[in-house]
Amino acid sequence: MDVKAAIAWEAGKPLSLETVQLEGPKAGEVLVEIKATGVCHTDAYTLSGADPEGLFPAILGHEGAGVVVEVGPEVKSLKPGDHVIPLYTPECRQCEYCLSMKTNLCQAIRSTQGKGLMPDGSSRFSINGQKIYHYMGTSTFSNYTVLPEIAVAKIREDAPFEKVCYIGCGVTTGVGAVVNTAKVEPGSNVVVFGLGGIGLNVIQGAKMVGADMIVGVDLNPGKREIAEKFGMTHFVNPKEIEGDLVPYLVELTQGGADYSFECIGNVNVMRQALECCHKGWGVSIIIGVAGAGQEISTRPFQLVTGRVWKGSAFGGARGRTDVPKIVDWYMDGKINIDDLITHVLPIEQINDAFDLMHKGESIRTVLTF
Amino acid sequence: MDVKAAIAWEAGKPLSLETVQLEGPKAGEVLVEIKATGVCHTDAYTLSGADPEGLFPAILGHEGAGVVVEVGPEVKSLKPGDHVIPLYTPECRQCEYCLSMKTNLCQAIRSTQGKGLMPDGSSRFSINGQKIYHYMGTSTFSNYTVLPEIAVAKIREDAPFEKVCYIGCGVTTGVGAVVNTAKVEPGSNVVVFGLGGIGLNVIQGAKMVGADMIVGVDLNPGKREIAEKFGMTHFVNPKEIEGDLVPYLVELTQGGADYSFECIGNVNVMRQALECCHKGWGVSIIIGVAGAGQEISTRPFQLVTGRVWKGSAFGGARGRTDVPKIVDWYMDGKINIDDLITHVLPIEQINDAFDLMHKGESIRTVLTF
Repeated sequence: MDVKAAIAWEAGKPLSLETVQLEGPKAGEVLVEIKATGVCHTDAYTLSGADPEGLFPAILGHEGAGVVVEVGPEVKSLKPGDHVIPLYTPECRQCEYCLSMKTNLCQAIRSTQGKGLMPDGSSRFSINGQKIYHYMGTSTFSNYTVLPEIAVAKIREDAPFEKVCYIGCGVTTGVGAVVNTAKVEPGSNVVVFGLGGIGLNVIQGAKMVGADMIVGVDLNPGKREIAEKFGMTHFVNPKEIEGDLVPYLVELTQGGADYSFECIGNVNVMRQALECCHKGWGVSIIIGVAGAGQEISTRPFQLVTGRVWKGSAFGGARGRTDVPKIVDWYMDGKINIDDLITHVLPIEQINDAFDLMHKGESIRTVLTF
Repeated sequence: MDVKAAIAWEAGKPLSLETVQLEGPKAGEVLVEIKATGVCHTDAYTLSGADPEGLFPAILGHEGAGVVVEVGPEVKSLKPGDHVIPLYTPECRQCEYCLSMKTNLCQAIRSTQGKGLMPDGSSRFSINGQKIYHYMGTSTFSNYTVLPEIAVAKIREDAPFEKVCYIGCGVTTGVGAVVNTAKVEPGSNVVVFGLGGIGLNVIQGAKMVGADMIVGVDLNPGKREIAEKFGMTHFVNPKEIEGDLVPYLVELTQGGADYSFECIGNVNVMRQALECCHKGWGVSIIIGVAGAGQEISTRPFQLVTGRVWKGSAFGGARGRTDVPKIVDWYMDGKINIDDLITHVLPIEQINDAFDLMHKGESIRTVLTF
């Protein structure tokens, strides 16, 4: 079938909206009509050419929502008409990783997904016979896309696509890091580094689970207002304090953070995030993605005296299980997505969405089809 | 009273056995007759002068066992005749740390202990009027020592002092890291770096809790026999394998260690210990003490993909609660201490005990009074 998709022909070039040929779903796969998709920093990272695993030409996009229109053979959990969110981290419930109950990093289709292909090793997108790669197993910058059944979360039908698409990446990454990875308890003191989309979602996750002190750290004082709206109780601008940031945060939190979150991707900040944690039990979670080859460092004494260093991918969420719950939290008013979606544009303006992000003018832009 | 103690007069010099004056217990303190004490690398580290917090002159020693002979006012949990193990990590059960239930690092007397003093800020040891510092709050290289009640674990009376003194540090550090810090589950794959006294105790802890594969890594092939006796299932000598150690260990463990333990104090090995862990859930525990100022490093991707980096001090054990249990485990034959104590010497030969350790000829030497 012919579909409308934004193609990334090569690194560093604008996307090109074109008519693309899409093959239908094979066994265990579904065809989804994408109704809305967010534009995320990860899309921009790959488009920039900095992602060493980036493939071109490809159809980017990994933060979508839509409706199942056709299911292939052997599909049991989905039917046409189901409202869904595509999952770049699938949940097969069969592999060693899923069955470990210790991680959300399902490996069932990892090797093909990393190569921009469907699980059978083929691409379903082409243009005039030329193969176009899938991206993160989702390729939501297309009005139709084919997905493995295990990479699709079924959600309630009353949830608005142009809002809950954000749960496909940013919301879950931030809220999930609090709920699933850190398991923040009520009364905890939390420090969040970086008040972009992920940081704001960490803040509202911390508020939802009953954290006491929620400290936001950002160099941009303009972030303060919205962060407070989302639950931040204390704002720290490293440029405005006297002395070093780490002891300042330790004093502010009366001993250190019970949990800290790095939402930037800066290895120096990752160290600060660890070292501002409370002796004995503070846990620091790395969410941000550092540049290729960069390293984090600290003195081992920091760990021997009880701090824990860990990371979080897709908020530790098992997509098919947890994403529908987060949709419920949004619909129940427990989390705020509306104020994070600062722009809604038609897919035709996709390059404007990237520009808004690069200029720092948007928190999240959602594209509709 | 006059007591017999080995004094460390200055860094790098042999200990000197002398008659020392000891003041009796004040409120909340007890006088303990030390019956046996191990000699640990930490004593040697401080004696060498490398410990930036080392104080001289001092009475070293922190791995003892003995009998309460006198209690000061307000002491409720101990009475004369009780068999006990001194605790360099106390357990007050009142401070923020104890009450957190997340750490064993009781802070009740930390500031004075770090200064070589009793909680009231004084030293009880002197020689001809000259103050001698306490060490790690225990000073077990003396036939009598004064201890805060909260720094004493009461143990069963049928446990032999010259064996269970080792539970005062090494045994608990190794076995406790497995049981309390890592919480290794039955069926786990474990990799242990360094097969000295701590590493062997990690191995027997892993065996006790039902680990499947217990891999020991050491440059010295002579460690193999005793490590196998303690439960090691696979021995890896980094000098004898082809290629890099980390991928070798990942392949050997079919995906990586569920838990790894660094028992050396080498920051490069700490990195290997983390990176040989299983994607998604592997946890690496630092036990070894690195040199002053040294740092650990890795790529944050290691953590974002699910590995966890943490540390362990005194095996995560709450001394008054957990040490008596470990004594029971020894008495019940669940753990082996006898084969780790390679030498028993009278206190008069204390400098020979240090020599045996430096030459690598002992696993543990115990001194008796």
